[in-house]
Amino acid sequence: MLGRIDHVGVAVEDLDGALALYGDRLAMPAAHRETVEEQGVEAVLLDVGDSHVELLRPLRSDTPVGKFLAKQGPGLHHVAYGVEDIEQTLEELKDRGVRLIDETPRTGIRGSRVAFLHPAATGGVLTEIVQGADH
Amino acid sequence: MLGRIDHVGVAVEDLDGALALYGDRLAMPAAHRETVEEQGVEAVLLDVGDSHVELLRPLRSDTPVGKFLAKQGPGLHHVAYGVEDIEQTLEELKDRGVRLIDETPRTGIRGSRVAFLHPAATGGVLTEIVQGADH
Repeated sequence: MLGRIDHVGVAVEDLDGALALYGDRLAMPAAHRETVEEQGVEAVLLDVGDSHVELLRPLRSDTPVGKFLAKQGPGLHHVAYGVEDIEQTLEELKDRGVRLIDETPRTGIRGSRVAFLHPAATGGVLTEIVQGADH
Repeated sequence: MLGRIDHVGVAVEDLDGALALYGDRLAMPAAHRETVEEQGVEAVLLDVGDSHVELLRPLRSDTPVGKFLAKQGPGLHHVAYGVEDIEQTLEELKDRGVRLIDETPRTGIRGSRVAFLHPAATGGVLTEIVQGADH
């Protein structure tokens, strides 16, 4: 059902500072930078194997990532699993009684379609499913 | 340098409850269960693609995962990147000025060798590197 780890999301206050850490010191190449208004973030995708680290800087303090930073500071924000067919996966998750934040997909980075599961369904882990634009 | 996302670690209070969520509802097959005394945890690895979700229950409250749970409750604890040669990677990270928790590898789950980077070097993310027992 959940095919692979697509990315981990990291909440940051200083996007260029985080890029220096991940891009320069840890040698992860930056692949993409985009402002995703719907999620209230400026995001950078870094390549690691076939997966990504997604650095997330909130556009405003009243966004989900802004509130996360105010509450617990920079760090791991969510994990995202790649799926082949996001509508079918959401149906399957609903049938299995998994609590969802998004009943239908919304637009993610790089034209992907994404939906969030509720942390109560995943042991406190904010969990995203993502279908890439190429599917 | 960091080859791929090997796993995400999730701190849990109730290992069997978390297994019901991940194994049954999210349909991730459990691959391995082990008590790792050196890290003070009972851990379960679940398969997702070529990577894993690692559920971590602290053996005692004075362990790193026990302290994490007391501070911020269940949820994402760390991310681990697979490497081919952990000694060489640690040398390379030191040369690049990356602050480390472990200067030398210690024993991880399933006979792996692991080392932790300092969250200050990774934007607040507790980060592990892991060389599998098959390397």
